[in-house]
Amino acid sequence: MKKILQLQSYLKEQSIDAAFITNPDNVFYVSGFKSNPHERLLGVMVFQEAEPFLICPQMEIPDAKNAGWSSDIVGHADTENAMEVLHRTASGRGVNLSRLAIEKSHMTVDRYDALLSLFGGLEFVQLDDQINAMRVVKDEAELQILREAAALADYAIEVGCKAIKEGITEIEVMTEIELALKKRGVTHMSFDTTVLSGPKAASPHGKTGDRKIQKGDLVLFDLGVVHKGYCSDITRTVAFGEPNEEQKAVYEVVLQAELAAVNAVRPGVTAAELDRTARRVIEEAGYGEFFTHRLGHGLGISVHEFPSLHGSNNMQMEAGMVFTIEPGVYLPGKVGVRIEDDVAVTADGIEVLTKFPKELQIL
Amino acid sequence: MKKILQLQSYLKEQSIDAAFITNPDNVFYVSGFKSNPHERLLGVMVFQEAEPFLICPQMEIPDAKNAGWSSDIVGHADTENAMEVLHRTASGRGVNLSRLAIEKSHMTVDRYDALLSLFGGLEFVQLDDQINAMRVVKDEAELQILREAAALADYAIEVGCKAIKEGITEIEVMTEIELALKKRGVTHMSFDTTVLSGPKAASPHGKTGDRKIQKGDLVLFDLGVVHKGYCSDITRTVAFGEPNEEQKAVYEVVLQAELAAVNAVRPGVTAAELDRTARRVIEEAGYGEFFTHRLGHGLGISVHEFPSLHGSNNMQMEAGMVFTIEPGVYLPGKVGVRIEDDVAVTADGIEVLTKFPKELQIL
Repeated sequence: MKKILQLQSYLKEQSIDAAFITNPDNVFYVSGFKSNPHERLLGVMVFQEAEPFLICPQMEIPDAKNAGWSSDIVGHADTENAMEVLHRTASGRGVNLSRLAIEKSHMTVDRYDALLSLFGGLEFVQLDDQINAMRVVKDEAELQILREAAALADYAIEVGCKAIKEGITEIEVMTEIELALKKRGVTHMSFDTTVLSGPKAASPHGKTGDRKIQKGDLVLFDLGVVHKGYCSDITRTVAFGEPNEEQKAVYEVVLQAELAAVNAVRPGVTAAELDRTARRVIEEAGYGEFFTHRLGHGLGISVHEFPSLHGSNNMQMEAGMVFTIEPGVYLPGKVGVRIEDDVAVTADGIEVLTKFPKELQIL
Repeated sequence: MKKILQLQSYLKEQSIDAAFITNPDNVFYVSGFKSNPHERLLGVMVFQEAEPFLICPQMEIPDAKNAGWSSDIVGHADTENAMEVLHRTASGRGVNLSRLAIEKSHMTVDRYDALLSLFGGLEFVQLDDQINAMRVVKDEAELQILREAAALADYAIEVGCKAIKEGITEIEVMTEIELALKKRGVTHMSFDTTVLSGPKAASPHGKTGDRKIQKGDLVLFDLGVVHKGYCSDITRTVAFGEPNEEQKAVYEVVLQAELAAVNAVRPGVTAAELDRTARRVIEEAGYGEFFTHRLGHGLGISVHEFPSLHGSNNMQMEAGMVFTIEPGVYLPGKVGVRIEDDVAVTADGIEVLTKFPKELQIL
């Protein structure tokens, strides 16, 4: 309930009567209950003082209890108007609701309209920034889960490297990776597992396909797992057979860029400085125009969350922030290399969560 | 562009200046371009007369073109305000926007606020019902894809049945199914593949786990594939070893209920009548309280779409509608049986898309 207490302090400070949280990732963050309700209503209502409640589809009540939510749970049946159930329950708390905080980046217009018509005269406050600010700094329990998630990503790369042989397709390698993870209890990947070979690795948004891997290819893996509700995200690029000079040169530049950014991480450094640190290495090697994306992104319950590490984000890093560092160079139709670690900012520097070797692996 | 023309007629009839479509499933429906933009803006703007345009992240422009969208495509970079790009482009069409149709069940409040402040004095019209009404009736091209998707689901059940042996876990069976589908080019399932055995099958929302399958179990498969952007969804319950009398009795009731509903499908019958037809069979056998969910749901680009087949939906079926019929009986802690087909309404009756046998398979 630590997060509920934090939210209650925020409500008091800002003179907001209540917060209604409906983004499933945020519901998980504040309640411990992870669920994808699709079109059905799932939410947590938090008041300054009154007891918070969780509202969910009737049939999910046992799961919500099992997840550890110990305050009220209110179910709604498919035959009920869930927003009316919400209104009834909130009204029963005896709080006069005039200012309500909502996630404007998640709440849909029809629910917004329903809140307006049910509660009448509500003023809405944007809650997104507050929850993002809470989520961006991980506590020790979250860090431990993220370490475990990163270790599973390391293992996946190891499996992928062992699977590579002449003529095997990208999809077959992907399947071997996911099968091995399932045997270790992984039920969901944090995004579609990516295995790109040869010229395909030069497309930063390429899709795993039925291309046959052959000697002389670089093979790029980009993958992650969902573990206890938290995501990992790793990229490694390996060589199948002896790499040529251009492949080696590009790899070395990306590696030096990645290491430069990793070495620059400490409390107080800005996202923009980290991005520039890596980009400078790549620019100085003459590949600047081929590093076409930001340096990285925050990582946690969502695979992409705050902070965003790009050249115009002056947010300062602080201890407990977790994000990816993933420079890449893509020479269209030829060579693609990306190296991505998950890292945590510590009180005096950095902890690199992903540990698979970064020197070019030649298989 | 048939769907764009339909939307333009609707806009003229309703005196709406434009429609802005942002639900990715609806964007795919009207444009042929399937993409999950996450937090980035993806949408199609349709006017009564002026040329429609698709707005998407800059890097997705080539994919949108390849998908066959032949009107304008407007990209936005991560460093731009996408809503401003939208406003600029829409304004460039020379249309005075005062009534705009949006999907209120999908658009978020922050985008709604941005539209209000950028365009000024907009009146919003709910577009959801119109698009749902268009999507609910499938054309021949869509039906053909749904047939193929159903055939892949049939194949998955076949693989699952072959995989069952003493001591194999539910997760292992699931993995064999998904591996076989990947080899046939299936990259995504329409939802988490479900394999439930023994008493676990009696929980309509149980999760595939590491329970070992043993002789005497009923095994329930519920799964589907995404194929060319469309979903299938099948359930079969099979017996591993000779079933006992109760298992046989429950199976027979569910089968008769399923067949009764299938036989009742024709243009003009209502969703409620179909639900009651199946429910009556189960009630008369004394299991009424154990059929705890609706009869079925529409199926297409989304795995759950219109129509919803429940007892209070008086929508009449018409040719081209595609939905599931999936009665079930769940005796808690003991026996669970569900049988689910994907069906299409034809001019004079029904086409059953899923074809895996429904007589109790004893493995």
